[in-house]
Amino acid sequence: MSETDQVVEPADHLAAMNLNDTVENHSFSDRVLIQSIVGRPDGGAGLAGKRVRAGGWVKTGREQGKGTFAFLELNDGSCPANLQVIVDAGVAVLNKLVATGTCVVVDGILKVPPEGTRQRIELRVEKVVHIGEVDPAKYPIPKTKLTLEFLRDHLHLRSRTNTIAAIARIRNALAFATHSFFQEHHFLYVHTPIVTTSDCEGAGEMFQVTTLIGEAEKLEKDLIKNPLPSEADIEAARQLVSERGEAVKQLKATKASKVDIGASVAELNKAKESLSKLEERFKLKPGIPQKDGKIDYTQDFFARQAFLTVSGQLQVETYACAVSNVYTFGPTFRAEHSHTSRHLAEFWMVEPEIAFADLQDDMNCAEAYVKYLCKWLLEKCLADMEFMAKNYDKGCIDRLRMVASTPFVRISYTEAVELLEEAVRGGKKFENAVEWGIDLASEHERYLTEIKFQKPVIVYNYPKGIKAFYMRVNDDLKTVAAMDVLVPKVGELIGGSQREERYEVIKERIMEMGLPLEPYEWYLDLRRYGTVKHCGFGLGFERMILFATGIDNIRDVIPFPRYPGRADL
Amino acid sequence: MSETDQVVEPADHLAAMNLNDTVENHSFSDRVLIQSIVGRPDGGAGLAGKRVRAGGWVKTGREQGKGTFAFLELNDGSCPANLQVIVDAGVAVLNKLVATGTCVVVDGILKVPPEGTRQRIELRVEKVVHIGEVDPAKYPIPKTKLTLEFLRDHLHLRSRTNTIAAIARIRNALAFATHSFFQEHHFLYVHTPIVTTSDCEGAGEMFQVTTLIGEAEKLEKDLIKNPLPSEADIEAARQLVSERGEAVKQLKATKASKVDIGASVAELNKAKESLSKLEERFKLKPGIPQKDGKIDYTQDFFARQAFLTVSGQLQVETYACAVSNVYTFGPTFRAEHSHTSRHLAEFWMVEPEIAFADLQDDMNCAEAYVKYLCKWLLEKCLADMEFMAKNYDKGCIDRLRMVASTPFVRISYTEAVELLEEAVRGGKKFENAVEWGIDLASEHERYLTEIKFQKPVIVYNYPKGIKAFYMRVNDDLKTVAAMDVLVPKVGELIGGSQREERYEVIKERIMEMGLPLEPYEWYLDLRRYGTVKHCGFGLGFERMILFATGIDNIRDVIPFPRYPGRADL
Repeated sequence: MSETDQVVEPADHLAAMNLNDTVENHSFSDRVLIQSIVGRPDGGAGLAGKRVRAGGWVKTGREQGKGTFAFLELNDGSCPANLQVIVDAGVAVLNKLVATGTCVVVDGILKVPPEGTRQRIELRVEKVVHIGEVDPAKYPIPKTKLTLEFLRDHLHLRSRTNTIAAIARIRNALAFATHSFFQEHHFLYVHTPIVTTSDCEGAGEMFQVTTLIGEAEKLEKDLIKNPLPSEADIEAARQLVSERGEAVKQLKATKASKVDIGASVAELNKAKESLSKLEERFKLKPGIPQKDGKIDYTQDFFARQAFLTVSGQLQVETYACAVSNVYTFGPTFRAEHSHTSRHLAEFWMVEPEIAFADLQDDMNCAEAYVKYLCKWLLEKCLADMEFMAKNYDKGCIDRLRMVASTPFVRISYTEAVELLEEAVRGGKKFENAVEWGIDLASEHERYLTEIKFQKPVIVYNYPKGIKAFYMRVNDDLKTVAAMDVLVPKVGELIGGSQREERYEVIKERIMEMGLPLEPYEWYLDLRRYGTVKHCGFGLGFERMILFATGIDNIRDVIPFPRYPGRADL
Repeated sequence: MSETDQVVEPADHLAAMNLNDTVENHSFSDRVLIQSIVGRPDGGAGLAGKRVRAGGWVKTGREQGKGTFAFLELNDGSCPANLQVIVDAGVAVLNKLVATGTCVVVDGILKVPPEGTRQRIELRVEKVVHIGEVDPAKYPIPKTKLTLEFLRDHLHLRSRTNTIAAIARIRNALAFATHSFFQEHHFLYVHTPIVTTSDCEGAGEMFQVTTLIGEAEKLEKDLIKNPLPSEADIEAARQLVSERGEAVKQLKATKASKVDIGASVAELNKAKESLSKLEERFKLKPGIPQKDGKIDYTQDFFARQAFLTVSGQLQVETYACAVSNVYTFGPTFRAEHSHTSRHLAEFWMVEPEIAFADLQDDMNCAEAYVKYLCKWLLEKCLADMEFMAKNYDKGCIDRLRMVASTPFVRISYTEAVELLEEAVRGGKKFENAVEWGIDLASEHERYLTEIKFQKPVIVYNYPKGIKAFYMRVNDDLKTVAAMDVLVPKVGELIGGSQREERYEVIKERIMEMGLPLEPYEWYLDLRRYGTVKHCGFGLGFERMILFATGIDNIRDVIPFPRYPGRADL
C-alpha cells in the first residue's frame, strides 16, 4: 500500500465538478452516480486516473493500518454494487466516517486497486465534502442481518437495505417496462378515478371516502368553545327584535327626527341579524348528519356515498369504446381483513382494454406483455436479479428466461379440470375437491403451472356461474370468454375476459345476478350506442414483482404496505 | 366516380387478415389502426392498392348518389384524422351505417381519391364485418357542436368527441414523456401511498378513509333482522343454565345412569353456549364505535385515523435518502370546497426528489423537465396540438416552442417584489397589495411571466413565514430555499424547495410552527441518521395539460373529474 504515502493536494470544489463532467452525469447533482462508475462493463477500470465527486451511504466501513486510513463501501442506490473508497487519516477524522449508514460526499481520484482484490476500481479520497453522521448505538438498522419482517416496522429506513433497494429498482424497471410496452403498441394511458361512486360488481369490500366524520368532529370541537343557543336564547333574541320593532314604530308614529328613526332602524336590523345567526346556529346538529334515520350523504363532499376504487376496468371501457386501445396503471383498494402474504389493502394494478379484439387477442396481449417484462428485467436489471438469485430465490433468473422464451400453454377450463381429475386419480391430493364448475383454487393453479406443465398456462372459457356479469357469454351458453394466466411461483398473475358487447345479453346477465340496472345504465350505454367487441385484463403489479424476485411476502415489494391495522407514514 | 361500377369480390376474413400484415399492426386486434394509414407522412397515399380491415366510429356519414353509396368519416381514436370510407349499397344497408357514433368494422381496398378532395387516401369497402348501431334520436352526443360543460354530464361518452380524445392523447403523451425524462436521468419511480396516516404539513383539507361507517350500517341492517337480546333474554338464558346445572347435580347425586348424566351434561353445555352467544351479542353497540366520547379509531381498518394523501413528498424523501434520485407520479387529494376552474378534489402530481442536490439543481431539473415535455408534444403530438390551436388556443403551439427553446428567467422573491412594486408605480393595478412578505397571488405571478418577461420565470428564496417547515432556511435566516416555476397561461406550474437537512434546524422549525414533533419522528430520523442535502418539487399534472392545450377548465383535462358534489362513475 505504498500509495498511501503519496501526497495528494485536495482538489477544490469547482475543479472536481468540472472533472465530474468526464463521466456520465445527468442526475442534477454535482456528484456522479456510483452506477456510472462500477456499473460499466469494465467495472469502472477504464476510468482509472479520473477525478470524481461521489456520494452515498456507508454500507461497511473500517479503519485499517493502525488508523492511518479507512475503507468505506459506499452505495447511493443507483445500483446494487458499492464503490470502494479509501480515506487517509490526513484527510478526515476517520471514526466519523465508518459507521454503517453514514452519508458521505467525497472528491477523489479513481485508481485500479492492487491485484487480488474483488473491486475493479476504487476511489482515493482527496477531500471529504460532507458527512451525515450516524450514532451506531442508536441507528435502527445496523449492519447485522435484519429480517424483512423487522424492516416492516421501519418503513422509513428500510430502503437503505440492499434487499429493499434492489426491489425498488426492479419495481421501477417493471413499471417503466409496462409503460414502454403499451406505448409501443399504441395504447393510451388513461387515469381512471381513485374515488368512485361505482362498484365494479362487488370485486371486494370497499373503503369509504368521506368528509362527514371530520366535519362532525370539527363541529364538536367548536361547540365546546361556543355552545349551541338554547330555545331561551332564541326567544330572548326574538323578544329583542319585537321590542326594537315597536320602538321604531313608536318613533315613526310620533314623527321623530330622521336621525332618531334611522338610529332606531339600525338597532332593529342589528337585532334581526343576531336572531338570524342564532336561528342558523340553532339548526346545527352535532354528529353525522342524518335523514330518515340514515346517514344523509347529500351532505357528504361528493353529495353521495363514495368509495376507493377496486378496479378501473368499467371506467376505462368508456375510453376503449372511443379511442380503441387503452390501459390504466394505478392504485386499487380492498377493505378485506386478509392477513395473508398475498393480499394488500392498497396495491397497484395494470389494466389494458382493447377494442375490436376478442379473447384470442386478449391472450396474445397478455402473453406478449408478460414476456416483455421478463426480457426487460433480464436486459436492464440483471445485477439486481443476480442479487435476488443469490439471496432469495436461486431459480428466479432461470424462471424469467423460461417465461420470456416459452410459448404459454393454452387450455380450456374444461381441459384444466380434466387434467386435475386425472392427477387426483393418479394419487395427487388437493384440499379443495375438483369438479367442473368450481373456481380453481390456488393449489390447482399451481399444480397446472408448476408441476403439470412447468411453464405459464392460460386457462380460458370458465363456467358462467363463477364469473362476473360483464364477461362475454360463449355460444355454449355455459361458459364465458374469461382467461387467467398462471405462472410458477405465484399462480394467477393475470385475469381477463372478452367483455359482453351485446346489449340484450349483458342486461339479462345483470338482472340474472340480482344486480340493480340503474347504476349500470352508463355502462349499458356503451352497448346501446356504437357497441364494439372488446376485451381486457388486469395484472396485479405486486404479484408480478413476487414472481420476478422470489420474495415471499407482498408487504415487502411495495414501498408503503397497507394492511389491516397498519398504514405507517 | 366510375369506380363505383367496378365489381369487387368480398375478401374472406382470413385473406383480409393476411393483407393487414402489410401495414403496421401491433395493437392485438385484427384491424389496423387508422393512424397507421392516415397518420403517415404521405397521408396514406403510398398504401393505395392494399387491402385492409379498419374499424372505428362514424364521425359523419351521408348517403350519396341517390342512395347508391355512402361516405363515412371513420375515427378510432388513434389519431385526430378520420379515414374516409366509401360503401356501396350492394355491400350493406347504408342507412344503418351513417348515424354519428355508429361502430363499423370493414374490409376493403385503399384507393387514391379523385383529384380535388382533401383526403390523400380512402377505403373502398368490400365487406362490412360489424355494425354497432346508433339510434340518432336517442344518442346523447349527436354531431352538433356540444359545449365542454354539457359533456361533463356525459363522462362515459365524452371521450368519443374530437376534443376529449385529443386531450386524452396529449395527456398520455405527457405522462409517458414524464416517465421517459426521469428514467433517462436515472430516477426511480416510487409508488408513495394513497392511504396515509401522515399529514404533509396541512397542505390542504383531507378526505378520511374508513370502514367504520360501512360496518355500522351493516350491523344496523343485521339488527333489523336479528334484534339485540334484552337483559331479560340474558336473565332467562342464565336461569336455564342454572336449572340445567341443577339437573346434572341431581342426577349425579342420585347416581343415575351414565347415559342419563351424559345427556343432561350435553343439555347444560348447550345452554351455556347459547348464553355466551347472547352475552357476546349483548355487547354489540349500534353506531360508530366510541370510546371516552370520541370515535374509537382502534376499531377502524388501519387501527387509526387514515386519510387520502395530499402529497407523496415526505414519504418519497425516505427513498431519496437511500437511493438518491426518485420520483412519484400518482393521484393526490384535497377535500376543499373549491368550485373554481383550477381545482379538483382528485388530481395527479409528479414529485421528483433528488439527493446530493441543492436549490440550483432543483431549478435545473424543473427547467429541463418542462422543456422536455414541450419538445415531446411538438415532436410526437403535433396533429393533436394543431387541433387544439385551431379550436381552442391559437397560440398554444408557439407557446410550447417558446418554452422549449427559451432559458427560464430566474429571479429571487425579493427581486420579484421589487418588479411588482415598480409595476404598481407605473400604474399597474393589482387586487392584492404588494409588499415583501406576501405570498404572490396568481395575478402577480401572471404579470411576471405573461407581461414583464413573456417567458417562464423561476422565483426563488421566499420569505420563511409563508412556507412549509421542511424548506431549507437560507443564511439570511429570513428566507427559505424554495422556488416556483411560473409559466404563461396558468401561472404557477411547479413548486419546490431544497429540504432542510439539518436536524436541529428542522426540529426548531417544526416547534416554531406549533406542530407536534411526534408524528414527524420518522421524518426527523432521515436527518438524525446519515443526513444528506436534497431537494425536490411538485408539478400539477393537469396544470401542465392546461398550459399545453389552452383548455380553460381543469375538469376537462382529467378523464373522470372529482369536485364538490360530483364523482360520476
